[in-house]
Amino acid sequence: MSTGWTSRYALRTKGIKSSAIRELLKITQRPEVISFAGGLPAPEVFPVERFQEACQKVLSTKGACSLQYGASEGYEPLREMIARNMARYGIRANIDNVLITSGSQQALDLIGKLLINSGDRVLVEAPTYLGALPAFNVYGAGYVSVPIDEDGLRNESLEAALRSEPKFMYVLPNFQNPGGTTLSEGRRHELVVQADKYGIPIVEDDPYGQLRYEGEHLPPLIVIDRENLRRDKEYLIGNVIYLSTFSKTLAPGIRLGWMVAPPDVISKFVQLKQGADLHTSTFTQYVAYEVARDGFLDEHVRHIRSVYRERRDVMLQALSEFFPPEATWTHPRGGLFLWVTLPEGIDCQRLFRAALRENVAFVPGDSFYPRNGHPPTAHMRLNFSNAQPEQIREGIRRLSIAVKAQLDSLHPVRV
Amino acid sequence: MSTGWTSRYALRTKGIKSSAIRELLKITQRPEVISFAGGLPAPEVFPVERFQEACQKVLSTKGACSLQYGASEGYEPLREMIARNMARYGIRANIDNVLITSGSQQALDLIGKLLINSGDRVLVEAPTYLGALPAFNVYGAGYVSVPIDEDGLRNESLEAALRSEPKFMYVLPNFQNPGGTTLSEGRRHELVVQADKYGIPIVEDDPYGQLRYEGEHLPPLIVIDRENLRRDKEYLIGNVIYLSTFSKTLAPGIRLGWMVAPPDVISKFVQLKQGADLHTSTFTQYVAYEVARDGFLDEHVRHIRSVYRERRDVMLQALSEFFPPEATWTHPRGGLFLWVTLPEGIDCQRLFRAALRENVAFVPGDSFYPRNGHPPTAHMRLNFSNAQPEQIREGIRRLSIAVKAQLDSLHPVRV
Repeated sequence: MSTGWTSRYALRTKGIKSSAIRELLKITQRPEVISFAGGLPAPEVFPVERFQEACQKVLSTKGACSLQYGASEGYEPLREMIARNMARYGIRANIDNVLITSGSQQALDLIGKLLINSGDRVLVEAPTYLGALPAFNVYGAGYVSVPIDEDGLRNESLEAALRSEPKFMYVLPNFQNPGGTTLSEGRRHELVVQADKYGIPIVEDDPYGQLRYEGEHLPPLIVIDRENLRRDKEYLIGNVIYLSTFSKTLAPGIRLGWMVAPPDVISKFVQLKQGADLHTSTFTQYVAYEVARDGFLDEHVRHIRSVYRERRDVMLQALSEFFPPEATWTHPRGGLFLWVTLPEGIDCQRLFRAALRENVAFVPGDSFYPRNGHPPTAHMRLNFSNAQPEQIREGIRRLSIAVKAQLDSLHPVRV
Repeated sequence: MSTGWTSRYALRTKGIKSSAIRELLKITQRPEVISFAGGLPAPEVFPVERFQEACQKVLSTKGACSLQYGASEGYEPLREMIARNMARYGIRANIDNVLITSGSQQALDLIGKLLINSGDRVLVEAPTYLGALPAFNVYGAGYVSVPIDEDGLRNESLEAALRSEPKFMYVLPNFQNPGGTTLSEGRRHELVVQADKYGIPIVEDDPYGQLRYEGEHLPPLIVIDRENLRRDKEYLIGNVIYLSTFSKTLAPGIRLGWMVAPPDVISKFVQLKQGADLHTSTFTQYVAYEVARDGFLDEHVRHIRSVYRERRDVMLQALSEFFPPEATWTHPRGGLFLWVTLPEGIDCQRLFRAALRENVAFVPGDSFYPRNGHPPTAHMRLNFSNAQPEQIREGIRRLSIAVKAQLDSLHPVRV
């Protein structure tokens, strides 16, 4: 150990652990492993040629500006484009409502920084996105969690949770990570009304909303809040911070996300962003704008949808075919993940190690709950976007071997 | 104001103000203003064509990897290259000592996050880099400051400051921002010994070290600490965190910096970085590696040195020619800034407004001191890297008009 460092770490970072998902990504890099563990987009869909053209255009026409320091708020044409694109999903934002972030992960960090004092509670879905927990933990967050079912956050548990005075609520309404579930329209309305009644702000994380493979797009919480409660056309006030990203539609390696909120809330985040990294890379912002413009992003999202829809269907089909009847799973209408539930008594971590011996990986379900708040049933999060269809089928077959072995060890007399 | 937000802000962010330097950058964008205010590199020196070649090469040979999620530590070949390059300055680091950050600003934020509990004091130079103050303030830092002179931090005030038990010390030994001063070799040794004696870690911020225009490179504090105190060849232990960046040598718009520390300290920062933004843009890391490799960075740094040396000399010459004898200034041996001292009684902010009326901008000296800890004498930070030589001369002429008018108003009988 280094001289004198450990005793100097701030209280808030005591016991920080390496994010489970990052560590898991390392295992998935072994070539023999079929991994359903990460949340990685399919590399085959990255629009590499379009990026090449965009880089050439940006550097030949705006070389100096694209390599210089920029505004903390982000590149104006990109913010305008984002505002314009979101209108399609009902979100009528102005440029003053939009802050560019270094991926959605930075938005989560800035939210923790702005809102969480040590000991404050955050209302989260159970299970929830595991990357949000370390971002909030570092500011001393505690949690109150509300279980989800196929229609998202279960409203009958919501009011009690809101009464416990959480500082804010963190929800993923579309194709939730890890659940793969979508909050129904009725529950969306009730959630917004209840949050307003108790004065609890909502952080709406929507990285996957554009990747819907069936059914109709449902109104975002930010739209319901504005249109039904505030009747505010300019979005000067509101109870929702909305987050999204280019990570699943263009590429995660450019680290570009955005946040939508009332201008006075955005201006606080701009100040925090100045201290955090001055601004997100000017160059990647200019390039992303060039890649996305002139309708390319829409066209590309349609392509991604068709690729991922097929992979989801292959995974659902393989699960039906290979998995034992004791296992159930969600039917995601979009996004990247589905969620498998196994009978009580199965040890998730043991199953994980057994799966690795079969050269297949997933994320054990208990990673997605704050601290030890996970239920007695075992869960697996399975990603279907990264592996190719034939790998998905083979991976589910391998995984079924591990699952059956665990079930057999549970009921040794089963034939 | 938005419904209910203000009352929810965390205590640590109460009263955060927009970073002075960012607001000033907005003024400098008016085309008629000659600005010495920002810390912007000269856009003429950006190696735009080399970036074009690098983008093509990266996208055509490693397109999918460069756009995918990456490791929080950073891109391995880039970390190896950084470790190799630093050896030239005596810093013998391994890849495990290097973490890629989203600019040095993110390193400052992560340092605040890891080390500062509310009420902890940070030992800083007076004046110090103003971007560090908001990064530390947000975690509740207080300050103890030690004045600098032409040879850097004044050692006679150091021991008293160390006795007050600061959590760590933040120093810029080379061509300090804003002072333009360089810590002498003798003082470097004493600083390292004293810090070790009192058990106070050192954060050594070195964004400008490679941009030396005269004299010999002096050993970094991290090297003195290792070689003289620890005699540790592997850099497994040590009392110094060293920061540097590509912002002043390649381009700031790619937001690429790095941190060097013992591996167990780096691993804590990696965990915090995971929560903060998962990782720095894979794409900009791949591109920067391609740009910098095969000796290009060295060659390019030589070019930048010659451009900036000329600009510094033009500014020094113009100051001698136009400025009144009551003003004095530092003679920076490198970097981007010099520091002008004016007689007691001159109001820095009033001078700033008067200068803007003459269409010339600088950063008022009081911005570079924690809270109201600035001295009675007025100071200006002047940047000489961004404006072209003929503009520098004209800008100093304009500035001298404002300075003389302020001096005249101070002594109305002066002829």
